[in-house]
Order: sequence, then structure tokens, then C-alpha cells
Amino acid sequence: FRRRLKYYFMNPCEKYQARRRKPLKLMLQILKMALTTAQLVSFGLSNKMMVGFKDDSRVSFRRLFLEGYKDHRQGSYALYTRSDVNDRVRFIIGQYINLQNLTVGNVAYELVDGEYTPLSVCQKFYRKSNVFPENGTFDIDPCVDEGCLSIHPMQPLHRPPVNLSLDFGSRLLSVSVRFTLKTINLQTVRHHELPDCYDFHVQILFDNRAHSGRITVNLETDVRISECRDWSVEGKSGKINYLLLLFDSVVILICSASLVLCMRSVITGIQLQFEFKLFFHTYFNKAVTWSERMEFVNGWYLLIILSDTLTVAGSALKIGIQTKYLANYDVCSILLGSATLLAWVGVIRYFGFFRKYNILILTLRAAFPNVVRFSCCAAMMYLGYCFCGWIVLGGLHTQFRTPAKVMACLFSLINGDDMYNTFLRMGDKSYTVWLFSRLYLYSFISIFIYMVLSLFIALITDTYETIKHHQQEKSPASQLHAFIAECSEQPGSGRHQTDEEAGSCGCVG
Amino acid sequence: FRRRLKYYFMNPCEKYQARRRKPLKLMLQILKMALTTAQLVSFGLSNKMMVGFKDDSRVSFRRLFLEGYKDHRQGSYALYTRSDVNDRVRFIIGQYINLQNLTVGNVAYELVDGEYTPLSVCQKFYRKSNVFPENGTFDIDPCVDEGCLSIHPMQPLHRPPVNLSLDFGSRLLSVSVRFTLKTINLQTVRHHELPDCYDFHVQILFDNRAHSGRITVNLETDVRISECRDWSVEGKSGKINYLLLLFDSVVILICSASLVLCMRSVITGIQLQFEFKLFFHTYFNKAVTWSERMEFVNGWYLLIILSDTLTVAGSALKIGIQTKYLANYDVCSILLGSATLLAWVGVIRYFGFFRKYNILILTLRAAFPNVVRFSCCAAMMYLGYCFCGWIVLGGLHTQFRTPAKVMACLFSLINGDDMYNTFLRMGDKSYTVWLFSRLYLYSFISIFIYMVLSLFIALITDTYETIKHHQQEKSPASQLHAFIAECSEQPGSGRHQTDEEAGSCGCVG
Amino acid sequence: FRRRLKYYFMNPCEKYQARRRKPLKLMLQILKMALTTAQLVSFGLSNKMMVGFKDDSRVSFRRLFLEGYKDHRQGSYALYTRSDVNDRVRFIIGQYINLQNLTVGNVAYELVDGEYTPLSVCQKFYRKSNVFPENGTFDIDPCVDEGCLSIHPMQPLHRPPVNLSLDFGSRLLSVSVRFTLKTINLQTVRHHELPDCYDFHVQILFDNRAHSGRITVNLETDVRISECRDWSVEGKSGKINYLLLLFDSVVILICSASLVLCMRSVITGIQLQFEFKLFFHTYFNKAVTWSERMEFVNGWYLLIILSDTLTVAGSALKIGIQTKYLANYDVCSILLGSATLLAWVGVIRYFGFFRKYNILILTLRAAFPNVVRFSCCAAMMYLGYCFCGWIVLGGLHTQFRTPAKVMACLFSLINGDDMYNTFLRMGDKSYTVWLFSRLYLYSFISIFIYMVLSLFIALITDTYETIKHHQQEKSPASQLHAFIAECSEQPGSGRHQTDEEAGSCGCVG
Amino acid sequence: FRRRLKYYFMNPCEKYQARRRKPLKLMLQILKMALTTAQLVSFGLSNKMMVGFKDDSRVSFRRLFLEGYKDHRQGSYALYTRSDVNDRVRFIIGQYINLQNLTVGNVAYELVDGEYTPLSVCQKFYRKSNVFPENGTFDIDPCVDEGCLSIHPMQPLHRPPVNLSLDFGSRLLSVSVRFTLKTINLQTVRHHELPDCYDFHVQILFDNRAHSGRITVNLETDVRISECRDWSVEGKSGKINYLLLLFDSVVILICSASLVLCMRSVITGIQLQFEFKLFFHTYFNKAVTWSERMEFVNGWYLLIILSDTLTVAGSALKIGIQTKYLANYDVCSILLGSATLLAWVGVIRYFGFFRKYNILILTLRAAFPNVVRFSCCAAMMYLGYCFCGWIVLGGLHTQFRTPAKVMACLFSLINGDDMYNTFLRMGDKSYTVWLFSRLYLYSFISIFIYMVLSLFIALITDTYETIKHHQQEKSPASQLHAFIAECSEQPGSGRHQTDEEAGSCGCVG
Repeated sequence: FRRRLKYYFMNPCEKYQARRRKPLKLMLQILKMALTTAQLVSFGLSNKMMVGFKDDSRVSFRRLFLEGYKDHRQGSYALYTRSDVNDRVRFIIGQYINLQNLTVGNVAYELVDGEYTPLSVCQKFYRKSNVFPENGTFDIDPCVDEGCLSIHPMQPLHRPPVNLSLDFGSRLLSVSVRFTLKTINLQTVRHHELPDCYDFHVQILFDNRAHSGRITVNLETDVRISECRDWSVEGKSGKINYLLLLFDSVVILICSASLVLCMRSVITGIQLQFEFKLFFHTYFNKAVTWSERMEFVNGWYLLIILSDTLTVAGSALKIGIQTKYLANYDVCSILLGSATLLAWVGVIRYFGFFRKYNILILTLRAAFPNVVRFSCCAAMMYLGYCFCGWIVLGGLHTQFRTPAKVMACLFSLINGDDMYNTFLRMGDKSYTVWLFSRLYLYSFISIFIYMVLSLFIALITDTYETIKHHQQEKSPASQLHAFIAECSEQPGSGRHQTDEEAGSCGCVG
Repeated sequence: FRRRLKYYFMNPCEKYQARRRKPLKLMLQILKMALTTAQLVSFGLSNKMMVGFKDDSRVSFRRLFLEGYKDHRQGSYALYTRSDVNDRVRFIIGQYINLQNLTVGNVAYELVDGEYTPLSVCQKFYRKSNVFPENGTFDIDPCVDEGCLSIHPMQPLHRPPVNLSLDFGSRLLSVSVRFTLKTINLQTVRHHELPDCYDFHVQILFDNRAHSGRITVNLETDVRISECRDWSVEGKSGKINYLLLLFDSVVILICSASLVLCMRSVITGIQLQFEFKLFFHTYFNKAVTWSERMEFVNGWYLLIILSDTLTVAGSALKIGIQTKYLANYDVCSILLGSATLLAWVGVIRYFGFFRKYNILILTLRAAFPNVVRFSCCAAMMYLGYCFCGWIVLGGLHTQFRTPAKVMACLFSLINGDDMYNTFLRMGDKSYTVWLFSRLYLYSFISIFIYMVLSLFIALITDTYETIKHHQQEKSPASQLHAFIAECSEQPGSGRHQTDEEAGSCGCVG
Repeated sequence: FRRRLKYYFMNPCEKYQARRRKPLKLMLQILKMALTTAQLVSFGLSNKMMVGFKDDSRVSFRRLFLEGYKDHRQGSYALYTRSDVNDRVRFIIGQYINLQNLTVGNVAYELVDGEYTPLSVCQKFYRKSNVFPENGTFDIDPCVDEGCLSIHPMQPLHRPPVNLSLDFGSRLLSVSVRFTLKTINLQTVRHHELPDCYDFHVQILFDNRAHSGRITVNLETDVRISECRDWSVEGKSGKINYLLLLFDSVVILICSASLVLCMRSVITGIQLQFEFKLFFHTYFNKAVTWSERMEFVNGWYLLIILSDTLTVAGSALKIGIQTKYLANYDVCSILLGSATLLAWVGVIRYFGFFRKYNILILTLRAAFPNVVRFSCCAAMMYLGYCFCGWIVLGGLHTQFRTPAKVMACLFSLINGDDMYNTFLRMGDKSYTVWLFSRLYLYSFISIFIYMVLSLFIALITDTYETIKHHQQEKSPASQLHAFIAECSEQPGSGRHQTDEEAGSCGCVG
Repeated sequence: FRRRLKYYFMNPCEKYQARRRKPLKLMLQILKMALTTAQLVSFGLSNKMMVGFKDDSRVSFRRLFLEGYKDHRQGSYALYTRSDVNDRVRFIIGQYINLQNLTVGNVAYELVDGEYTPLSVCQKFYRKSNVFPENGTFDIDPCVDEGCLSIHPMQPLHRPPVNLSLDFGSRLLSVSVRFTLKTINLQTVRHHELPDCYDFHVQILFDNRAHSGRITVNLETDVRISECRDWSVEGKSGKINYLLLLFDSVVILICSASLVLCMRSVITGIQLQFEFKLFFHTYFNKAVTWSERMEFVNGWYLLIILSDTLTVAGSALKIGIQTKYLANYDVCSILLGSATLLAWVGVIRYFGFFRKYNILILTLRAAFPNVVRFSCCAAMMYLGYCFCGWIVLGGLHTQFRTPAKVMACLFSLINGDDMYNTFLRMGDKSYTVWLFSRLYLYSFISIFIYMVLSLFIALITDTYETIKHHQQEKSPASQLHAFIAECSEQPGSGRHQTDEEAGSCGCVG
């Protein structure tokens, strides 16, 4: 029984020496990694084409419909006078009507029942709002009404009646211009893929909810990707598609195989653990601690199982996308990306079979609980600073506007971000707040960079030395290892070959 | 007596084991933290609305009144020719008169005694100033006179006589345009709060004090937030307000309770300390050192007391703001923010009850005095560099203009700021200064990053190892701990329950 | 024999003490370094002039031919409407025809067979492309046809027929404008070098392959540098050229000498190694390990050999460039640059002869294998993150567009790059992806900065201490050193002088 | 004699205990530091006014004379067409003639002998230059001729004959416009200082030396500050000036006193050293090592002497500036700045008198030689990288243009500068160079951040531990300390008071 245990805890090299078993599972694992990465690259290239087309279209819509649009940053495009707002809305309508003569892309209006869908201009306003700031009185009904106007393209007769009247002052909440444009991404034809059809639902929102004299303008596009209805491409495209589907299926097959093997290994481990517990109870009358029982469940197997599950799900989704039934590129890319990340991380396991590499991996693993423990303590202080920063400095600095931004900003500051600008931009307002911001930033940075980061280094340095001493002394760390170590046969002695069946061995070796 | 001492130094877990006392105070503390954070978030959201409105208004005033204003940075908006100055002043007057037709916000002129308050254009000039730079002679009287001009809006008859004549040349010191605008922040209606009324005192200053040919233009707004005089909102707002006030009152109550308990604990500690001193003097005839006496005053209690005081003050202020009697959001946010920061930091105490967490907290606490000590030494060098940098490089680089900026800039440089730009911008002037700036920067960065920061790490690493060895050896650190340790009963032995009354226990457990 | 061995492992100081040999090779090496650096500086100055001229010309072409061109960043110059495209193409043609009256440089059209080469405007389009996005149908032939148009300068009669008709819509793939301009870099005359003649092949590409409504415009120049055909310069230039060639030849000679000496030393080392192996086998009957055998091959010699080879190759190329037979400045600069880098690194060897310097160099050398080993493990995780980041975040953030960019970006993030902007720019799209990006970035940065970097420090700290203890104990590290150490004579005892011939000594001492 | 030695190595506290001597010199030193800093601040404020005026004037000249000037960066203002150059030159002339009506500052033309100095437009050109790039032939005479044209302001009759003809093409090298403007900095009147007169020699250079089609335009001002000739200010200014001079004189006096005392102490130390050497030779017959002899020369005294010398020189210069005899603010600020930096660094000495502070200072001092030693090794590699980067990447990236820039850039990269941009901007040119740049950057950053910086930390950590052990063991480090330690009397025993005269004590205690 001791031999079975020992065999279970061997690595592929030792197994090979013990039973002359070729590390088939290791090869399977490496093959899997190669295939997954190849699949990821292939998906990445077609994803890039889709993302690039979407982004370019979005940019060209902004340029076509927003007059004087230059900068790409959010919220920086804003209007301040009534005439500007009127002009911009009219400009959008004009551009929409003349779109076919203006654009250099192949954009078309949506066609529903043989008729082009109109552009709609909607304004939202309070039902009643009599506001007199001069003497501080107001009478308001917070219910919101909406009034709309439809403008049809391609109908020159309709052009005169565009009598747009925006009710400025305190009533107007927002003006939104909505229209739908259709386009085809022809680029894919050159890469022997079938083109997709895109529906862009464009909404341009003039937001006056704040009534602060500043109307921000945002153009948002909602994209729906669908299969094109009727197509003909001269040439031989379509074939390579089947090859891709075949490739994906192979990936799914291999991952499933790997998944099954790993799960068998995990189950074997759990069974062995029960046997071991029983054995110890019977012969030595000792209890087996939880940490020893956890050693039977190999963390690497769990990682591989997770990775395989993600790959199978991602590949299935990818087939759906390639056959144009599905279009959720985002979810697919997250699944495949995470799977590949885990697959590559899993490779570190094989480095661990070499003694000198092992010490580094062991150090990281041994330091991990302490690092997490300490991170918890630091996180408390960090969260305290986050809340405090958000509430006090939120008004001074855009980086402190939302709690999520404060977290990112403080995290970046610890790791060496542009600190001076953070200091600089807080130097305007009242002296109390200025002083507070200095105290806040200096104390935060000093505590975190000089104390907390240094303690991380101290933790790792200490763990490294501890592990190194352990390895040099080769003392068995637990009952389990002591028990196994008593089995003094060398892996190459050949005994394992006779009294153990080959099937009891795990998935990746 | 030894038992009472031991009991005093127990943590809640041990107290529970000793006397079966439920850690009510710990729960109170956690409840307090949750409530304080909830209160902070609620205040943060309404604060954000106020700050957003103020900022947006300020931006829209800049855009409306400063012709060609684009950039948000301080001081970059400047004029260089006489005609430009005249045009800009006339533009401001024109925009002010037409404001009601231009703006998209609900801004109105101030109404005092049924009449709109005028815009005033004031110029300051030297009483006498005959300056002839061509032959280096001047005759000047540094007394400053001021001349003003009022322009009333809504009076079309008044428009012709705007005969603005600015006395350029050496006499003019500054032109300031001042006016007051009123507005109402309607946004809050949608969040079921009552709207505030805002008075914006706008001042546009054309600053020519330097007489360098460059007139900087600054628009500054001074905001006064007040309750609106007369209002009616259709719907049910007003109720939620009472709930908020109730919530704030609960927070005040809980914090007061926590405050009272903690103070009692601190007082108990001080009493025990006197008894202990007497006891040691009587029985052992030994003096008790200051550091031992300080151990009776628990630092965590002081932190909680400070946090509670701030919370109570901040909540009271918040009630004042919510009922529209007060409007100093800044002070309130600093009080509540600091309180929450301290409350979250206080949570670390409870992590310290677990042994493995404790070592990290102990390390930081033990390293703290050394870090502070070393920071003092480093601060001397740092201040030396600051003064030197300010005086020599102040003229070359905007980051070195004021001592506060130099401090922030050097601090940022140590922590990994954009160094190259700092180097680059100093590369223009005379060779001596250029060389000095190089020496200055290289020496500063090398000393601080390679020597000082490394010593911080050395300090923490060393302390961590010291603490670890101490914990492994479990040697009593002081007379006090040795004395307590002699009391060998386990906390769970039940003795404490009989001869001690429950009330002698501290606030947080 | 032991003495020969000992002598082989001596450093120049000890050799001087042992045999009174002057360290001629050390001097040769230092002379070489000085000459190489001088040569590098001379080449750098003429290279700078060439690069500056090329860059300035490229910028001035962009300004002359691209209307409204301001910014230098790639891809930011794009067009969105048909009229804009037509205007820009016409503008280019107009500027080309009037070039001689516009430009301030001495640019001329290319002259082939007495005739000026024309500007050619070419458009590429699909052979057939009927695309109707409105109902999702298309009929496309992915073959690409090209149509061109030539415009001759200096022929006023040709100007009317410029009837450019671009076939917008789905067919047009790209418009490219190509022409060739010739110029002479006169600047070199003032530095007593002969001027070069430059042929700029300019191509302006209007890229519509994406059909996304956005046509990016790129101006690319392909430069060919050639000897000018016929020239006369009044004055004495030409002489200094010969001095430069002489200098280069001297560098080649010295490097060859150094090369030969070092190779002889390496060969001596290999011979000694075989003798040592035999000796040990015969007398002690012990095997000699690989690591001991590798000690006979001095790594520094290999470094010098590599450096010398590069210098010789680079100098030869430089002579070719100076005599205007070759023009590949790039390769030459890489060769010379790498050679100089290696030569300077080689100087560290001489610091190692001092005991206190040695410990630092030994630490780095001893830590190197561990650092590389650990880097391999970290690289696996790193690559996993790279692939995952590329696929998932590639669409959100320009820094994640290509795998090479992802690698650079993540590498920069570890080393303290602007993190906040990376966080910020991912805050737009769907919530799933936003959440994933946060998890991705926080986990990546935490793992790499807090765990991996700390482990590097732990590795180096540990190695430093190990090396220090070794040095203090002076225990012989291997059989070889133990064997040599038995030869207890001091270097200065004079014995070496008699029974060893001088020629057995290595190249650099 | 041993007592005198011991007394010499005492710190002020111990001296006070030994002889009841008040630490007068320590007080003097602290007084000096306070005065120096106050002086620095006073000089800083008047320096700031001068620098601000100069900068503002420079900016306003750029705005007035360079049409369309926006950006402040060097070299970005350039012209590309002949008509632009002609227009800009004419614009400058026009602005100059109308200056008095345009500018908002009090600028005037220079008046020499009752006549206004003219603006001069000079063009430099090759004497002969026939260049035909089309067939690669040229005939050039590198001699440079210059032709000038003077334009007088205030003479309307002169305006017609401005027939400026620039000889474009290959002959023109540069056009420079030069004029002189005078102004007075009135700002100082308000701070009760006398105004300075400024002569701005403005030169606008259109640089065509490269003949690359790009003419860069630079406006450079050369300022001369002089006393104004004839002035009258109503009010009481002038008095405070005398107070300032008095203050400066006091600083000079105190610094001289400190200087004298310190030099006496150093001399006493050197005398003691000779006596000690003789004593040891006579009684013990032992040689005294150099390191022991160096201990007699207190480094802190040298630092104070240097600081005092700089302060005296700086203060003298400051008096010269304040009385308007001198105007070299730069040198004065460097002298005073360095003096203050050293004075503040000197304060660290007093921290060293406390035991716990001492360990940190000792660590830094002990680690210093090792850090410097290691820096030398690292500097070799660093210089190698610098040269290599300059030659290969100089053409790709502006940060690599000059060796000084490469040094700053690489130094910044090690310390966490914006790395990604450095990577990004190299991604354009040929693949070989791109690959090389990647290798170069990755290897440089990895080696320096992961190996070199870690070794610095290892050095400091190790030194800290060594020093700590030494302090705990209190072993005398050298003969000298052993000798002194034998004198077992406590400082407070009173003996020193009787047999030593007070005057033998050093400057700062």
C-alpha cells in the first residue's frame, strides 16, 4: 500500500523510471497547450477584424454627425449656448439625409417593409417647471414627458417641415437623436471568411439633466451582428471554414480527454486518502490532519480541470460564432483567454520537477498564505483610505470621482504612477482641503510604499530562506511524507512494475 | 489582583472563554463601522451631486464669458495685445447682457430690491506712473487707485454709453469684471431631495501687475449655497429626508455609546496602572518603567475615541446640511472621511487576535519607531534638497516654483514619477545651471532611491525576523508580562467568572 | 604542471608579481576601448546628420502634401467624407506641380532620359461588388483591379485633363499617390564631408480596405542614398576623409590583434583542460566534472572575441559607407553599437581583480542562473497573461492590440508605468469585460510586483550572503581550486619566471 | 593625554556632562542654519520675481512676433513653404513698428544717441551654390556671406522700401531678425524694492542650414539687467533695503565665526593625530594605520567649512545684487542653495548623538563605499548601454538624440519612467532595428531593475545587520577606540574639568 501511495506522489520522470511508462499524459498536456494557443491566435485575428471594424465605424459616425468633433475622451464634447444646440441638431439631421453622398463607407439606411426607417429626435422635459432663480422660488412637477419627431430620409418633400423647437430653460432634460444604419464588413472576404452584417443603432444624447449650463453630447452605438441574408462570393471561400470547425472539434476532444483523465486522478486521490485515513487509524491509531488530507487533492489537477472546462465551453461558443449562429465575441474571448492563461500557468508544474526550479515555486506557494493574510490587513487600511479619499477629494480631482476610480488611482500610486499630477491638481480650492489632501497623500504613499511593500519583500525573503533550509535538511514535513519515505526502494528498482496496475495513475502523469 | 490584570490584557476570544461573556462590544464596533460607511456613502452621493453642479457651472461660465477658452489648466489663458484685451472685456459685457437668450442652464441675474444687480468693470492703476524704459527713468507713486463702471442688464437704453477706456501702458494694474448669478440645482428633485439655491459671485480678473506684456485672465467663482425661499414640488419628497435624519441620529447614538465605553476602559486602565505601580513598589520594591506604564493605555481605544468624536461631529454637521441650515460640505466631508478611515484601520485590531496575522501587525508596529526615526534623518536631507531646488531650479521648471511644489515633485520622483520630463525641461538655459541641475537630480535620486529606500526595506526585514524569533521563543518581554504570565490558569478555567465583576471590562471587548 | 595551471588562472597583477611581465595586453584592451568609443562617436555624428536630414524631409513632405496635417502620431490622420478625399488628392497633385515655387528645400523632380518622372495616382477596387447593406445582400468578386493615372510636372498643357473620378462605395479599396523626389544633403559640406544624394520615393496611401467609413491617410517615404554623380567643392575637403579611413583601419588592426591573442588563450585553455583531465585520471583516478572543465574556458575571452568580431565587421562596413559604396547605416550602427557595449561591459573584468569589487560581480554571476531559472517560470505566467490580455482586452485598449504591444505594456506596468490610464481606458464597454479587466490587471500587478519582484530581491540578497560567507571562509569550491591551492608559493616568489615560457599567457593578461 | 583624546571624540552632551560647558557652538550652528534658510527664502522671493518677469516677457515676445505661435516646446514651430517664410518675416517687421500700440506691457525701443535702434534682418547664404538634385550634380563654395537690412521704427517714410528678397533654394542658410527692447520691472515697487531695468536682445532665427525643406523658427532673448538711471518713487522704499544688507552682513559674520572655529578644531585634530602617532610609536612601538589617522579629521567639520565658505561667497554676491552692482542671479542662487543644502545635511550629525538614530546613519556611511564601488561596475555597463543606444536608436527616438539625453532617459527608465511610450515610439522603422530595440530595452531594464537594484538592497540590508551586531557586541573597532576605551572614567566624573583648558574644544561641540 505504501508503494501505491508513493507511486501516486511521483512525478512523470520517476514514474518512467519506476515502470517504464511513457509520460503520455504529459505529451497530451503539451499538445493541448499548443492547440489551445493556436486556436486563441486564430480567434484573436478574426476578433481583431470585428473589433477594428466596430471601432472605426464608431469613430466615423462621431466625425460625421458631431460637428467639430476632435477628441476621443469621454464627456469632453459639450455645448454651452442655445444656438449651438440648435445648430448641432440640425447638422445631424442634414448629415443623415445626405449620408449616401457623404460617407466613404458602404452604410445604408435600414429598410423595414420596403420603407427606410426614419431618424427620430426626442426631447424629454419636466411636465411643469416654473423656476425663478432670481428670487429663489420654484414650482416643479418631477414627472417627465417625452415628445418626438420623425424625419424620413430620401424624401425631399419632407425637408421643409423640420421645425424643431427645443424648450430651453428649466424644462428641457435631454434631447436624443436616434437612427439605425446597416453595413457589411467586406474585409473578411479577403481572409476567406464570410462577411457579417452589422446593424448600428446610433443614439446621440444631448444631456441637460444637471441644468448647469453645460449640455454634454454623447454618441453611443449599439451593434447587432447577424448573418447576411443573401450572398454570393466568386471563388472558393467556405472550405477553410470547415477546416476551422474541424480544428475546434479536435480541441474540444483533446480537452475532454484531458478532463476525464484528470477527474479520474482526483477521484483516485480522494479514494487513496480515505484508505490512508483508515490505514493510519487501524495500524497507528493516529488521526490524520486536514492539511495532510488536502495533500491528496493535487491543486494542479484542479487547475487543469478548470482550464479544460473553460476551453470546451469557449470552443463550443467559437463554433457557434464561426457558423454565424452566435455573436457574443466578448464571452467567448473571456472563456478562451482565461483557459489559455491557466494552461500556461499549468506549465510551471513541469518546471517544478527539476529541483532548482522547485525551490522558487515552493517559495511562492509557501509565501502565498502569508501574503494573502497580510493583504487582508493592508486591504482594511486601503479601503479606509479609499472611502476617505472618495468623500473628501471626490470634488477636487477626477481620479477620485467614483470609488472604483479611487481604488484604481491609489493602487496605481503605490506602484509608481504619475504622482506629481495628482498633487498638482488638488492645489486649487480652500486651504483646509488642500492641507488635508497633502496629509492624505503623503501619509498614504509613505505607509504603503515604505512600510507595506517592504513587508512584502521581508515576507518573501524570509520564506525563501526557510524553504532553502528545509530542502537542505530534507526533513519530512508531515506524517504522510515520513510514512512514504520509509519505503526506501529507488524508483528504478522495478518493483512498482509488478504489483501495481498501470491504470491507477493520474492524468498528466 | 493578578487575575484582574490578566483579564484586562485579554482579547475578546479569551474573555469569552474565561467568563462566557459575549463580545457585545465587538459587535457594537462592527455595527458602528457598517453604519458609518453607509452614512459616508449616502453623504458622498449627495456631495457628488453638489460638487458636480458647481464644477459644471464653473466650466460653463468659463466657456460663456471667456472667448476662445479651451484648456482647463491654470494660467494658460493669457492676452498679449491691447485690442485683444478690449475685445475680451466687451465680449464679457455682451454675453452678460444677452445671457438669458444664450445659456442652456437656468441662470438668472440677482434681484435686489426689485432691480437686477449690475455687472461692474473695475480697473486698478498706479496714481502716477511715468515710465520711460528707453532711457531707464521713471517717476512712480505706488499708491493704487480704482475706477469702476456699472452695466445693468435688461436695459436696452443703457447699451450705447459703454465707453470703456483702459489706460494701458505702465499705469494699469488690473481689470476685474464682477457679477452675481443665481441658479437652482434641480437635479436633486429626481433623487427625492430638496433643491438648493446657489449664488455664484463671478470675478474675471485681467492681471497686469507684472507689466511683462502678458495679461493672464482668470475666472473665479465664489459659491454660496442657501435654502430656497419658496418652493412647491408635486409628489412625495420630504419623507425620505426624515429617514435620513433618523439614520444620522442613530449613528450619533451608537458612536456616543462606543465613546463612553472606550473612555471607561481607558480610565480603568489608568487606575489599574496606579494600582500596579503601588503593588510593585510595596511587594517587590521595584520601580515601574514608563514604557510599562504606557502599556496600560491601549492605543486602539484612543483611535476609536478619536474616530467616534469625529463621527459625532461630522454627523451633527451633516444633519445641519441636510436641513439646509449649514452648507460647509468641505468640513463635514473631512470629518466623516477621517472618521471612516480610522474606523476601518481599527478593524485591523481584530485581525491581530489571530496569531498569524498578529506577527505582521506587530512587525509594522515594532518597525514604526525606527522608520519614523530614520525618516527624520532623511527629512533633513530632503528639506535641504527642497530649499536648494527651489532657489536654483525655481526659474527653470514650473515644478520647482513654490516650496510646496518642490516637496511634492521630489517626493514623486523618489516614488517613480516621470523623471525624463523633469530632466528634459531643464535643458535650455545657461550651462552652469544645466550642469548643476544634472548633479542635483542624479545625486538626489541615487541617494534616495538606492540608499534611503533600501534602508527602509532593511529595517522592515530585520524587524520581521526579530519579531518572528521572539514569537518562537515566547520570552516575556517586560516585568509586567512576566508578572502576568505567572498566573498560570487557562482562560477557560472558570475562575475569572467568580471573583471579578463583569463591568470592569472595556469598550470593544 | 600545477604551476602552469596556477599561472593560467592568475590575473594580470599577480602575473606581474610572478614574472615581472608588463600587462601589455591589458593596455591593448584599454586602448582598444578608447579607439572603439572614439570611432563610435565619429560615426554617431555623421549618422545623426543623415538621420536628421531624413526625418526633417519626411516631416516637410507630410506638411507639404497632407492638407491640415498637424500631429505626428500614426493613423490619426483620417478622412470621413467623399469630398474630403477628392480635395486631398487634388491638393497633393497641385502641390506636386507647384513644388519648385513652394518648398524651401532644394528638392527636384527625378529626371529619367531627359524627362521628369510623373506623379501617378492609382486606385484599387474589387472587380465586382454589389453590396446592399439595407437588406443584407451582396454579390462580390474578391479579385482586385488597379487603375492608374500619370500627371507630369512642368507641362502646363496637361493640367486640364486631370479628371480624377474615384469610385466610392463598396468597390474602392485604396487610392495611392506615388512620386519620386531627389535632393542633396548639403549640410555635410560644412563638416568637411562629401554630400550624399538622396532619392525619396514618396507614397501617399488612402486606405479604404475596411469600408468602415474611415479612410486613413499615410505618407511613407522610401529613401535610397547614393553617391552624387558630378561635384565640385571649393576648398580643402577630401583630406580629412583619408584620415578617417586610416583611423578605421587602425581600429581594425588592433581589434584583429586582440582577437588573435584571445583565441590563442582560449585554445591554450582547452589544451590545459585536456592535460588536466588526463593528469587527474592518471594520478588520482578521479573524473573531472563538466563544471570544472568549463572553468578553463574564460567567459571574458569569449566576450572579447565577440566584441572584436563585431568591431571588425562594423569598421569594414563603416569604410564602405565613408567611401560612399554602401549606405546601410542601420546595420553598421548595430554592429558598432553592440561592439562598444560589449567592450565596456568587458571593463568590469578588471574591477574584479580588486577583492571588494569582486564580491559584487561574483554575486551577480552566481545569482544569474537562479534569476534565469526563475524568469522562465515567471515567463510562463507572463505569456499566459499576454495571450489572455491580447484576446480579451485587445478590443478595448490600443495598448493591447498586438501581442508585441501587450508584452511591452505588461512589462512596463510591472516596472511602474502609468497604470491609472490603463485602468481608465477600459472603463467603457460591457460590465462583464470591465469586471474581467479589473480582475486581470489587479491580479497581474499584485502577483508580479508583490511576489515575483520580491523573490528576485530575495534571490540576490541570499546569493550575496552566501558569496560573502564563502569568501570569508576561503574554502576551495572545487577539486580544481583545491589542487591549485596546494601550490603554496606566493606569486612574487620568482619561480614562475624560470620554468615557464612567456608565450603561454593569455590575451588580455 | 588619553583624557584629551577622549574629550576630543566626545559629543556635546558628553562634553556638557564632563565639564559643564554649555554647547555654545551647537547653538551657533543652529542659529546659522535658521539665518541661512531665512536669507535663502528672502533671496528666493526676489529671484522668483525676476525669473517670472523674464519668463513672462519671453512668452509675450513669442506671442507678439511669431504668428500663430501656440506651443512652448522647442523646435516644434517650423515653416515649410516660401510664402510662409516671407509672411512671417513681414509680420515681425509690422509688429515691431506698431509695437507701442500693440503691447500691454511697458516695452520701449532702445534709444542710442537720441535715435531709436533699428530692427535688422540678416540673411546668410553660401557664396556660390549651384545644385541640381535631378541629376545629382553640384558646384558649391562653402564660404558664407551675410547681407543685412535695417528697419527703423517711428519713421513712417521708411515703410515703403521694405523690399525684402530672400534667396530661397540651395543658397539660403538662415534669416535672422534682431532687435533690442527695453523695459522696467515695476512689480518690485510694490514689495518695497527698487525696480530693475531690463534690456532684451531678441533674435528670431529662421534656420535653413539643413536644406531639408523645413525651416525651424526660434526666438531667443538675451537679457541684461542693469540699474535704472534716474528714478523717483513716492513713499518710504529704500529703508528696508538697508535692513536686508544688515541681515546679510550678520549672516556673513556668523558664518565666518563658525568657519574659524571649525578650522581650529580641524587643526587641533591634526595636531592630536601627530601626538597620537608619536605616543603609539614611543610606548607601544606600533604603527598607526591610515584609517585611524583619518578618524582625527572629522568629516562633519569639513562639511561645515564647505557650507560656510559657500554661504559667505553667496551672501557677498547677494549684497552685490541687492545694491544693483551685479546681476548674476544664477551663480548666487547656486552658491546659496548648495550652502543651505549642506547646512541641513549637517543637522543629521546631531541626530547621530542619540544611539538609535546613530545606527541608521552608521549604516548609510558604512554601506556608502560598497555602494560606490558597485556603482562603478554598474556605471561601466550603463555607459556601454548609453553609447550603444545613442548610436543605434538615436535616429528612431528623440529621447536618444544626444548622449546626455540617453543617460537621462535610461536613468529614468530604471527608476520607473513611462516605459511603454519608449517601446511604442520605436515601432516604425526596419524590422532589424525594431528587433534590436526590443532586445536592448528588455535586457537593459531586466538587468538593471532585477539584478542591480536588488543588489543595492542586498548591500544595505547586509550592512545594517553587520552594524547592528557590532553595536550589540560593543567591540572596539580599532586600536584608537580600544585605547580611548581604557580611560574608564564617566564623562560626568568631573576630572576633565580640572586638567584641560576649555579652548581645546572644537567648533560645533
